[in-house]
Amino acid sequence: MHALGRQILVEFYDCDRDILTQGDAVRDLMMEATRQSGATIVTDTFHSFSPHGVSGVIVIAESHVAIHTWPEYGYAAVDIFTCGDTINPWTIQKHLEEGFSSQRVSSMEMRRGLFPDAVPHKPVGFDIGADPVLN
Amino acid sequence: MHALGRQILVEFYDCDRDILTQGDAVRDLMMEATRQSGATIVTDTFHSFSPHGVSGVIVIAESHVAIHTWPEYGYAAVDIFTCGDTINPWTIQKHLEEGFSSQRVSSMEMRRGLFPDAVPHKPVGFDIGADPVLN
Repeated sequence: MHALGRQILVEFYDCDRDILTQGDAVRDLMMEATRQSGATIVTDTFHSFSPHGVSGVIVIAESHVAIHTWPEYGYAAVDIFTCGDTINPWTIQKHLEEGFSSQRVSSMEMRRGLFPDAVPHKPVGFDIGADPVLN
Repeated sequence: MHALGRQILVEFYDCDRDILTQGDAVRDLMMEATRQSGATIVTDTFHSFSPHGVSGVIVIAESHVAIHTWPEYGYAAVDIFTCGDTINPWTIQKHLEEGFSSQRVSSMEMRRGLFPDAVPHKPVGFDIGADPVLN
């Protein structure tokens, strides 16, 4: 069975709480991380909530990258949904881990859209260069 | 351990391929499904890709709802990320299942952000009214 897409669900614990409250800082880190991964950015939308917390999504030609932060817990949930072989999602994880100063990272990889003969319109194939942190 | 958020990953197989190609139809279904769930819509962004395929994300006060379609496979991947007790994510799944005429639905529920004492700024607690389709 081949997958049309893959999705990395990342839990960033023990982060710098101050950064997680700042919508601009979270957006800057997410955008730079996504650029470094080789993704083609289509659009993005970020929102800061009261009393705190940032939600943001970057739509990429290869699917999306999303974040939700809970500064009061020093926690951020990030989803990296990709298809094709042009993106290294671990680049995004690593950049955010450093940017948030996360002291504990947990990742899970999901395969989405399983077909015996999957040859999607976006090329399939993965190139995992960096070392993922798997807890 | 309590979770700050929960996420439903839904695989819609054997869908109406014509609908999955139509950006407006996909957006309309996603928006209506999200409204019916009780979510507060903050913003949305949808894009149609060449030669086919639609990607879209609705940012809600309670996190996000995202979709990617592969019309050539009759397949759509949907993520419903929520926090708080005001949303019924299965309402979204059911509305989309009918709208896409999906003949095979697979769902997985993830708990995000686990803490022993989680009392997030967005209220926690789940109210599952509809019957989920779990394969």
